[in-house]
Amino acid sequence: MSDQPLVIFTPSGKRGRVAPGTTVLAAARQLGVDLDSVCGGRGICSKCQVTPSFGEFSKHGVTVREDALSDWNKVEQRYDDKRGLTKGRRLGCQACIQGDVVLDVPPESQVHRQVIRKSADTRPMVMDPATRLYFVEVEEPDMHEPSGDFERLTRALKDQWPDQDFAGLTAAPTLLAKLQDVLRKGKWQITVAVYADHTGAAPLVLDVWPGLHEAGLYGLAIDLGSTTIAAHLTDLDTGEVKAASGLMNPQIRFGEDLMSRVSYVMMNPGGEVELTRAVRDALADLAKALSEEAGIDPQLIVESVIVCNPVMHHLLLGIDPTELGQAPFALALSEALSLPASDLDLTTINPRARTYILPCIAGHVGADAAAVSLATAPELSDELMLVIDVGTNAEILLGDKRRVLACSSPTGPAFEGAQISSGQRAAPGAIERVEIDPTTKTPRFRVIGVDLWSDEDGFDAAVAKTGVTGICGSGIIEAVAEMRTAGILDGSGLIGSADQTGTDRCQPEGRTHAYLIHDGSADGGPKITVTQGDIRAIQLAKSALYAGARLLMDERGADRVDRIVLAGAFGAHISPKHAMVLGMIPDAPLDHVSSAGNAAGTGARMALCSITARKQVEEGVTRITKVETAIAPKFQEHFVNANAIPHKTDAFPDLLKIVDLPDVNFNAGSADRTARRRRR
Amino acid sequence: MSDQPLVIFTPSGKRGRVAPGTTVLAAARQLGVDLDSVCGGRGICSKCQVTPSFGEFSKHGVTVREDALSDWNKVEQRYDDKRGLTKGRRLGCQACIQGDVVLDVPPESQVHRQVIRKSADTRPMVMDPATRLYFVEVEEPDMHEPSGDFERLTRALKDQWPDQDFAGLTAAPTLLAKLQDVLRKGKWQITVAVYADHTGAAPLVLDVWPGLHEAGLYGLAIDLGSTTIAAHLTDLDTGEVKAASGLMNPQIRFGEDLMSRVSYVMMNPGGEVELTRAVRDALADLAKALSEEAGIDPQLIVESVIVCNPVMHHLLLGIDPTELGQAPFALALSEALSLPASDLDLTTINPRARTYILPCIAGHVGADAAAVSLATAPELSDELMLVIDVGTNAEILLGDKRRVLACSSPTGPAFEGAQISSGQRAAPGAIERVEIDPTTKTPRFRVIGVDLWSDEDGFDAAVAKTGVTGICGSGIIEAVAEMRTAGILDGSGLIGSADQTGTDRCQPEGRTHAYLIHDGSADGGPKITVTQGDIRAIQLAKSALYAGARLLMDERGADRVDRIVLAGAFGAHISPKHAMVLGMIPDAPLDHVSSAGNAAGTGARMALCSITARKQVEEGVTRITKVETAIAPKFQEHFVNANAIPHKTDAFPDLLKIVDLPDVNFNAGSADRTARRRRR
Repeated sequence: MSDQPLVIFTPSGKRGRVAPGTTVLAAARQLGVDLDSVCGGRGICSKCQVTPSFGEFSKHGVTVREDALSDWNKVEQRYDDKRGLTKGRRLGCQACIQGDVVLDVPPESQVHRQVIRKSADTRPMVMDPATRLYFVEVEEPDMHEPSGDFERLTRALKDQWPDQDFAGLTAAPTLLAKLQDVLRKGKWQITVAVYADHTGAAPLVLDVWPGLHEAGLYGLAIDLGSTTIAAHLTDLDTGEVKAASGLMNPQIRFGEDLMSRVSYVMMNPGGEVELTRAVRDALADLAKALSEEAGIDPQLIVESVIVCNPVMHHLLLGIDPTELGQAPFALALSEALSLPASDLDLTTINPRARTYILPCIAGHVGADAAAVSLATAPELSDELMLVIDVGTNAEILLGDKRRVLACSSPTGPAFEGAQISSGQRAAPGAIERVEIDPTTKTPRFRVIGVDLWSDEDGFDAAVAKTGVTGICGSGIIEAVAEMRTAGILDGSGLIGSADQTGTDRCQPEGRTHAYLIHDGSADGGPKITVTQGDIRAIQLAKSALYAGARLLMDERGADRVDRIVLAGAFGAHISPKHAMVLGMIPDAPLDHVSSAGNAAGTGARMALCSITARKQVEEGVTRITKVETAIAPKFQEHFVNANAIPHKTDAFPDLLKIVDLPDVNFNAGSADRTARRRRR
Repeated sequence: MSDQPLVIFTPSGKRGRVAPGTTVLAAARQLGVDLDSVCGGRGICSKCQVTPSFGEFSKHGVTVREDALSDWNKVEQRYDDKRGLTKGRRLGCQACIQGDVVLDVPPESQVHRQVIRKSADTRPMVMDPATRLYFVEVEEPDMHEPSGDFERLTRALKDQWPDQDFAGLTAAPTLLAKLQDVLRKGKWQITVAVYADHTGAAPLVLDVWPGLHEAGLYGLAIDLGSTTIAAHLTDLDTGEVKAASGLMNPQIRFGEDLMSRVSYVMMNPGGEVELTRAVRDALADLAKALSEEAGIDPQLIVESVIVCNPVMHHLLLGIDPTELGQAPFALALSEALSLPASDLDLTTINPRARTYILPCIAGHVGADAAAVSLATAPELSDELMLVIDVGTNAEILLGDKRRVLACSSPTGPAFEGAQISSGQRAAPGAIERVEIDPTTKTPRFRVIGVDLWSDEDGFDAAVAKTGVTGICGSGIIEAVAEMRTAGILDGSGLIGSADQTGTDRCQPEGRTHAYLIHDGSADGGPKITVTQGDIRAIQLAKSALYAGARLLMDERGADRVDRIVLAGAFGAHISPKHAMVLGMIPDAPLDHVSSAGNAAGTGARMALCSITARKQVEEGVTRITKVETAIAPKFQEHFVNANAIPHKTDAFPDLLKIVDLPDVNFNAGSADRTARRRRR
C-alpha cells in the first residue's frame, strides 16, 4: 500500500493518490476533477465546496477515517460565520487530505455544471461560458521594474491561474483607464472578467472589480424575430434566467413581413439604415428594460447572443437585404460572428460586452434555424426526426445521425392569428382550445388565462375580466380541425350550409358560409366565427408548411418520419392531433409528436452559456444540406397537393386510428368557385 | 545538364531550376525571391516587372539566349499600350521561362524594398506593412452552395494567395455591408486590403474596392509631443511621405508642460476626460488636414502609428495620468497597443483603420524614446552610443550591442526658446546661428529663412520681409557658448560688465548684465539680448540634460562615449561644438557627434511601414535597462556639478582641442548672489 492517501471524487468517480497535506482543490486539479474556484484558493469565494463522506465504502474499497481531512480551520470558520456553510461541507481550498477520502462535488461547485432543462427534446446544456471571473493578487508597481499595471495583471493571471491560456491577453482603452483605479481601490486584489471564446482570438479583459466580485455576470440570449424580439437575461454562472421580456420588432412600420421590408429597401435605396437603426435601438431598449426588471446592474451584462432569420441578420448588421429577396438568395455573411456589442450599438450594457451571432445555414435558412438545430440536435438522433419551427417563416429540419436537411417555408402570418377574421395574438381572452361535438355540432372552448372550458360552471364569471376577445393561432388550428372532424368542413376546405351540416351555427356570409364559435354580442363583445376566408388562409399556410416538410422527406427518400418536434413560441402550443387532422404535419403516432418550446431561444441561451455549444452549432451547420424551396419544382407540386384537409387521408393512417374523418362534400354547384380554382 | 532551365535572380542571387514554361512570377515564388504582385499574376497590376539580361554571364556560368523567355504577349502589349512599360522590362506573370536566364528584380518590384533614408545614423527601413492589397476573383453565389459573400471572399484569398496566412480572417459589420455591393460592382473581381500584424491576432479585412485598386494605401506616423503634434502621411507601398504637418497640442491650455497637465487632473478629478477629448480632436483634425493637403481620399488612410511620452500616452488613451506624477511612476500599460483607430475617435480616416502605439519603456521614458531607439538602433552598435532626444523632456539612451540604458531628464522648455527673454520658436525671423568675435566681442548671426550672415552684404534687404524677431533654441545655445568662448561669460555663468568684458554690448540690467545681440529698435523692431536670467535658464536645462547622460554613463561604468547622436526636431539643429562648450553633452571628438533628425518621428514611420520594426521595438524595449532620474541621488549631484559652463574643463579634453576657453571670473563681490545661491 502506498503512503499517499487515495482520493475519490464523486459523482465523476475520478480517483488517484496525492501527497499528504494536499488541499482538496489542488487534488481536484491534479486529478482533472471539475471543481470551481474564482478566488484561486484563498478561501473567500466558497465556490470549491465539497462534502466528505466518512466510514467504510466497500464499493470504492476504502475506509474513510474521521481525520481523513485536516481540521476545520479559521478561514472556514470565518466564512461560516459571515455567510454560513451548509453542514457537512468543507472549503476545498482549505481542507487538506490526510488519509483516504471520498469527496462529493455538489453541482454548484462544478464549473461545467449541467443545467436542468424543462423540455426533454433538447440537447443537454452544460455551463461553459466564454466569460469567466478570476480573482488575482497583482504585484504593486515598483520603480525599479517599470512594467505597466496591465502587464502586471497579465502576469498575475498567468501565474495564479496556470491552467488557463491567457496568451495575447488584451483590453480596450476604456478598461485600461478603469484598471488603474480598481487595482488601487482593491489594494491590488481584484476580480477580472476575461472573455475567451472558441475562435482562437486573443482573450480580452472585459471588466475588473476591486476585491472579490460576487454580483455575478450576465448575458442576453436574444431571439430576434420578424414580428417580436424576445430576450432572456441569463446568469452566466448558473444558466438561470433572471428575467425574460419581449417587444414588437419596430421594423414592422416598414413592412409586416420580411419581404415587404426587403421591398422597402429596394424602393428606398439606403433605407436599410433606418431599418438597422430601428432594430438596434429596440435591442438596446430591451436590454435596458431587462436589467431594470431583474434589478441587475447593466454593467454586469457582458455578453449577448443573437439568433434571427437571414433578413433580420442582415438588417441588424447594416447590410442591404435586397440580395436575399431574389435568386440566388446570396448571404453577405453566413458564418458565425463574434464582435463587440458596441458594433451593434448595444450600448445599454457593459461598454466592452461581446456579441455572438449564430451562423446562417442559407439565404432562407438563418441563424434561428441554426439555433433550433443546436437545441434539438437532430444530428444526434437515431430516429429520423422532423423539427418544425412554426412562425411567419417555418424553419424545417429533417434528419438523423446520418444526415440533416433544412429548408424554410413561407407560411405567412395566419398561424399567428393574423389574416384571420377573428384572429388575435396569444393573449388573455383569446380562444386557444376548441372542441366541437360531432353530433350536436356545438363548440366548447378555452381562453387564455382561464382554466375552465366554456361549458363548465363558473366560466362566465372567470372570463368576465377579459371577455372572449378573439382566437389565437393554436385556437384557429383546433377550430378548423374540429370543424373537419365534426363534418362542418369538407375535405376541400369548404364550410357547409346550415342545411348541409345540420347546425344553425353555419351562417351564410356573402357567397360562402361562416361557423359561429362564440357570440358575445349580447354583452357588447365580438361574434367569433370561422369564415371561409379564414379556412383558405389556414389552408395556404399549412400547405406551405407541409410542402416544405415533404420536400425534405423526398430529398431524404423517406415516406414517414419517426419523430416530429414542434418548436417556436407558437409551435409549442399546437395540439399534434389537430395539426395532423389539418394535414399541417406528416402523419406520425401521436406520442411521437412533441414540443421543444421556443427552441430558437433555447439555442441562443445554449450558445450564450457555452462555447462548446458555439462550436457544435458552427460545425453542425456545415453538415446540414440546405434545400431551397423557392426553386424546387416539387415544392409547388406538394403545395398544391396539400390544399385539402388533410390532403390525402391514405397518407395519414395513424391519424385514422384516432379520428374518424367524415366523408362530406359541400361543393354543390356554384358554391365555391374559388376553391376549385385554387385546387387546380 | 538538366533539362530544366536555370533561373538566376539579381540582386538577391537566388537561383534554381524550374520546369520549362514556368512564369517568372511562379519561379520567383518557388525560389523564395521577393517579387511583388497585387493582382496575383493576372497581368493587370504590373507590380511583378523584371528586367531579363541576355548574353554570356561568366560570373554566373550561363549563356542567356534571346529566346530564354517566351515572346512578348498580348497582355504585356495591352499593358504597354495603356500605361507604358519601361523598355527592357517584362511582366513576371506573363513571361515564361524557356531557357537559362538572368532576371533583375528592380527595387520597385520588391515587396520588402528598402527605403533610402536621408540620415545615416538610423536603422535601415524595409517596407513590410501590416496592411497589404490583394486582388482576387471571388466565386459568384450559387443557390446550391449557399455560402456567404464573405466566406467566398475568404476562400478566394486562401486559394489565390496560398503563401499568405488568412486563417481566422474577419471583418467589421461596416465592411460586410460594403462588401456585398463592391463584389457586384467589381463583377466579382475586387481588391482587398487585409491587415495582419505581428501580434498573431486574426487578420482583418479593412476595405475592399471593385476591380484593381490603384490609388494605394496610406498611413499616418504621428509624433504626439507635449507641445506640438506632428504627423507624416506616408504611402504604405513605397514608404514615401506624401504630406507632413503639425499643430500645437491643444492641451497647452490645461498647462504648458506635462506636470502642470497632471496637476490639472489632480486638482480637477475626471479632468483627464477634457484633456483626452482635446488631443483626440486634434489628431482627427490633423489627419483631415493632411489628407486634404496631399489630395488623398481619407478612406485610403488605413493605419496610424503614434509615439508619445507616457503622460501623453495615458491622456490619449483616456487614462488618468496622476500616477505618472508621483513615485513609483506606475504606467497603466507599458506594452505596445494595437487597436481600432476609432477607439481613439480618429474618425476622419478609414472607419476600420487600425492604430499602433509603441510600447513605453518606463513611467518617465515613453513610446517616443522607444521610437528613438527603433530609429537609431543603439543595441546594434559596436561603439558605445549616446542618443539624446532633446525636448521639454530629454530622452536619453546609452548603449551598444552589450546593453542599452535609458532615462528621461526634465530639461524644461528653455531649449525650445521658451523662458528666454527674447526666445521664440524656430520660425522665419528667429536667430538660429550666432558667432562672437573674441577680440571685438561683436556678434554676427543668421536668421531662419535667410542664407546670409548679418554682417554680409544684402542681409538687411534679405531680412526685411520678416525682420529679426527673436532667438530660437539653437540660437540661444550658440549665443551662450559663443559668449563663453569670447570671454563675455565666466565659467560660473555670470555675464561680465562692460568694464570687465571690454564691450558696451554688456549693459546693466537690474543687478546683473545683459549682452546685446541685435538692436532693431531704430526700425521699430525688438532689442535682442541675452540676459543673466536667460543664462540661468539654459544652465538649468543643460545641467539636467548632462546629468541624465552622466547618470547612464555611471550605470554603465563609462567615462566617455564613442558616439553621440542628437535627435529631436530641435536636436537636429544644435551645433555639436556649441553644445559641448555649454557642457550640454559629454565630450567627444566633433566628428563623432551627429544628428538623427526627428528620430521619434522616424521611428513612428518605421513602425508604420513595417511589422518587423514593430517586433524589433517591442523586443528592444524589454532589453533596455531603465534608470529613474527622480530617485537617483547621483542625478542631483551631477545636476549641481554640471551648472558651470562647461562644468569641468578637464572633463572636455576634446573640446579644448578646438576652443580656447578664457579663464575669466566676473563674480566680484555682490554682483550675483543668486548665482552663488544656485551653485550651492
